[in-house]
Amino acid sequence: MAAELTAHQLIAKHRPTLDQALETIRTRAYWSPHPEHPKAYGEGGSLSLPEGKAAFDALLGTRFDLDQPGTDDWVGGEVSPYGPELGITYPHPDIDTLLPAMRAGMRAWRDAGAEVRAMVSLEILARISARTHELAHAVMHTSGQAFMMAFQAGGPHAQDRGLEAIAYAYVEQARTPEAAEWTKPQGKRDPLALNKRFTPVARGISLLIGCNTFPTWNGYPGLFASLATGNPVLVKPHPRAVLPLALTVRIAREVLAETGFDPNLVCLAAERPDEGIAKTLAVRPEIKLIDYTGSTAFGDWLETNARQAQVYTEKAGVNTVVIDSTDNYKGMLANLAFSLSLYSGQMCTTPQNLLIPRDGITTDAGAKSYDDVVADLAASVSGLLGDDARANGILGALVNPGVKTRLEAAAGLGEVALASREIANPEFPDAVVRTPVIVKLDGAKPDAEAAYLSECFGPVSFAVAVDSATDAVELLRRTVRDKGAMTVGAYTTSDEVSAAVEETCLEECAQLSLNLTGGVYVNQTAAFSDFHGSGGNPAANAALCDGAFVANRFRVVEIRKDA
Amino acid sequence: MAAELTAHQLIAKHRPTLDQALETIRTRAYWSPHPEHPKAYGEGGSLSLPEGKAAFDALLGTRFDLDQPGTDDWVGGEVSPYGPELGITYPHPDIDTLLPAMRAGMRAWRDAGAEVRAMVSLEILARISARTHELAHAVMHTSGQAFMMAFQAGGPHAQDRGLEAIAYAYVEQARTPEAAEWTKPQGKRDPLALNKRFTPVARGISLLIGCNTFPTWNGYPGLFASLATGNPVLVKPHPRAVLPLALTVRIAREVLAETGFDPNLVCLAAERPDEGIAKTLAVRPEIKLIDYTGSTAFGDWLETNARQAQVYTEKAGVNTVVIDSTDNYKGMLANLAFSLSLYSGQMCTTPQNLLIPRDGITTDAGAKSYDDVVADLAASVSGLLGDDARANGILGALVNPGVKTRLEAAAGLGEVALASREIANPEFPDAVVRTPVIVKLDGAKPDAEAAYLSECFGPVSFAVAVDSATDAVELLRRTVRDKGAMTVGAYTTSDEVSAAVEETCLEECAQLSLNLTGGVYVNQTAAFSDFHGSGGNPAANAALCDGAFVANRFRVVEIRKDA
Repeated sequence: MAAELTAHQLIAKHRPTLDQALETIRTRAYWSPHPEHPKAYGEGGSLSLPEGKAAFDALLGTRFDLDQPGTDDWVGGEVSPYGPELGITYPHPDIDTLLPAMRAGMRAWRDAGAEVRAMVSLEILARISARTHELAHAVMHTSGQAFMMAFQAGGPHAQDRGLEAIAYAYVEQARTPEAAEWTKPQGKRDPLALNKRFTPVARGISLLIGCNTFPTWNGYPGLFASLATGNPVLVKPHPRAVLPLALTVRIAREVLAETGFDPNLVCLAAERPDEGIAKTLAVRPEIKLIDYTGSTAFGDWLETNARQAQVYTEKAGVNTVVIDSTDNYKGMLANLAFSLSLYSGQMCTTPQNLLIPRDGITTDAGAKSYDDVVADLAASVSGLLGDDARANGILGALVNPGVKTRLEAAAGLGEVALASREIANPEFPDAVVRTPVIVKLDGAKPDAEAAYLSECFGPVSFAVAVDSATDAVELLRRTVRDKGAMTVGAYTTSDEVSAAVEETCLEECAQLSLNLTGGVYVNQTAAFSDFHGSGGNPAANAALCDGAFVANRFRVVEIRKDA
Repeated sequence: MAAELTAHQLIAKHRPTLDQALETIRTRAYWSPHPEHPKAYGEGGSLSLPEGKAAFDALLGTRFDLDQPGTDDWVGGEVSPYGPELGITYPHPDIDTLLPAMRAGMRAWRDAGAEVRAMVSLEILARISARTHELAHAVMHTSGQAFMMAFQAGGPHAQDRGLEAIAYAYVEQARTPEAAEWTKPQGKRDPLALNKRFTPVARGISLLIGCNTFPTWNGYPGLFASLATGNPVLVKPHPRAVLPLALTVRIAREVLAETGFDPNLVCLAAERPDEGIAKTLAVRPEIKLIDYTGSTAFGDWLETNARQAQVYTEKAGVNTVVIDSTDNYKGMLANLAFSLSLYSGQMCTTPQNLLIPRDGITTDAGAKSYDDVVADLAASVSGLLGDDARANGILGALVNPGVKTRLEAAAGLGEVALASREIANPEFPDAVVRTPVIVKLDGAKPDAEAAYLSECFGPVSFAVAVDSATDAVELLRRTVRDKGAMTVGAYTTSDEVSAAVEETCLEECAQLSLNLTGGVYVNQTAAFSDFHGSGGNPAANAALCDGAFVANRFRVVEIRKDA
């Protein structure tokens, strides 16, 4: 490697981090090398908050040149959910030039081997980490996340998920040795003896189709899983959330070049308005892997049409919380209130349907009727978001006008238990900030089913009255089976109900959070420990991150000869 | 487990075998717990050759009852390629009864956990191993393999592949712990703490679609990979090769019952003539996994239509040997002659196209013209098969009339360098035994391409004259890319040619055997060490056996709660 950074230097710098990640995905204990306090940045080459903000500001209104081959145009029209136009333009690719150029560096990247690929990937992550504050602003002004969430989820937590994918990719490749001597006894004759070499080889170009709400968190796993297994990665960001991934691509290209590899192993494909370039790219023969987060309709289209590729999709689902009983009523309400409010419910993991027996529930604060529970939850949300500054910090902004439309329509679906409230954002007067709406629905009424059995993405939840805990579990099962779910929650003090919910989640393949009343929320998962999605129900065909997410991104070629 | 064999007993008996398998798939050195000498059987509860033969004979003309639910008929029409009708009938399923019955035992099988599932699977293999001689006769009289090959490939080698799959399945499930404590520091506040449980859960019913030529060798990997990951397995054998898999299913059901599990976790689905039951089964919603070995047409059909399932296919390919030069001409010829002759070339791994420069090759025995090489190879095959008894032992019988038709037609495709010869089998006069044909083709002639770029399954190979080693490598690349290949062979003393062939195999994802001149043949792969297929070219979408073959046969469900 004729490079500024040698393999030796990279291994010395990053191998301990990889080893710790490998150990943690085995124990699934807590660990992260990426600090989640804003003040932890600013030394040792990393940007402080003001430096990150300044770096972000300096990008506004500029052309984001990546020095990619086959750029035939400059495109971009991002408008921050907080109001300002970003005014940044990005390279639009001539695909017939770009794709062959991306393949040119594959051989050297393959020959580098799994460990060096992991080390280079970790160097990319380290450079991203150093610019967490810059990326936080980019995530904030494309997703509408509040700053603290954009910083944490878009920064260290996304980087954790990337590192997790690198660790899985490495261990999957390393389980087959590079070489083996094979000697088979033949009784009195000489043994048969072969020398064998095993080489992990890439599938081809990997396409990352980014999403609007979590461009880095949902993007990094596929990006790093594919890159670390030898595949070039073409990043096609959501047109409303280009900047976070464009910065990521720029950093990746810098590191690849400095480590002696072809920077075109990672490229960006921005698109013209309404171009739908993902559809064109997804069926190109060069594209062998696709990672996608977004609507069910396009995810299904990819799975059906991109037959030349392995397709990893995270689509829509309907997340349920079964509320049967609790020994910590206050904690339950506070926990749920935060889950419903965080990022205006614009997470694929936010609960939508709260299933509450119409005869009420038992709690440590006495029996509570269905109406009590709904009213108390509404009060809890109102209390949490009563202070505008705090509300802004939790809610962020609505990511696009479609969410606002759905939110407004939701009020007409049933009795409104908690009306959505407009919150002013003094710093960004154009931001559309809304508190969640909670709508009461009767689970026994067929006309209500259309509402609660569809994903209503955004700050909308349904308090669905059910006949009993048994009825709730049955509806949970049907919801997961038919609509999919990224998360399931349940509150119960009954061993019987708990067992029924657990069995349902095991049988329908959904991730369950039980009786959360503290500072962990059903919509949050931690890298190295929690799986994001299950890959076994209609919400997603893959989980972040497991062996199945990486094992088919490469194949192993064996070359054997007589010893 | 209320069972005759407890988990404790099974672990004591089989855990060391599993551990050795886990170690060997890591080192890829030689190992097998299954003896490949016929005389190694007959003690310790295993059947000797005569006992196995007697057991096989006792099955002829009987109804093979498996005590399965939903049997609506008895079907069967196997005729040995050696002549005799087997006269055995098997249960034909009422699918709507059988499939639900197969799901009934899933929960207990899931709750048993990965280790117990591995142990029960190993007990099934151990019982199969004890009846190797019975299975050898069943394989011989369905596939047409000669006895010694049916014994080895259908017995210990198939069992090795099954054990390999169990080992991969176990390690894949065990990499996530059953439980974890997760504690995240929160500065001066109390840490966040969760208890987590992780459970591997099955996908659903797994369908094994067996093949005619290697019912056990090609069937066991998928069967055991699915069973060990928690999935019930429905075995749909090839209608000409039911018995080996029916015996396997019977043994599996016995072991499941004795270990306290539902025997319906493994069932057989025999079919009426021309029923095509695989097509019906493959798209049933209960079927979530499919393992298939057979024609490209039906493999492609499965991949396109069985969208509700993960589909693992091994299809047709065109295997190439590049002959550039050698320092062991005699060894090369002998090695190739055996490869072309073994089981009448009816292996998916048998070489078909021998690419030979029209200007000849250099060897330790002097320069050899194209015609010399072809003639010498023809002589080598003739020599190997000159003795009828030895020829019968190597060739076996043609598996079906289609092979004979292709063999006869091949003589019309070009100049015949070695004519196929009929061999009498004194023990089985009705057996159709034929030596291989070698046909000369000119690689530069477009009309020859249609012949050598199609799979001609059976004892047919083409000596294709090419312009140069470079031309050979280019044709190799095109063949693998367009038609797929299970194996590639090459003979060269040139570093340059060797590098070009290796690079081509790495880029087109094909398994390469280089300069084999001894007792290992390009068409043989050893479990625990060699990959069978690459999963990265059109011949197969999976390799036996790697992480990708098992990782997506189950998902992991996490249940977390506040600590």
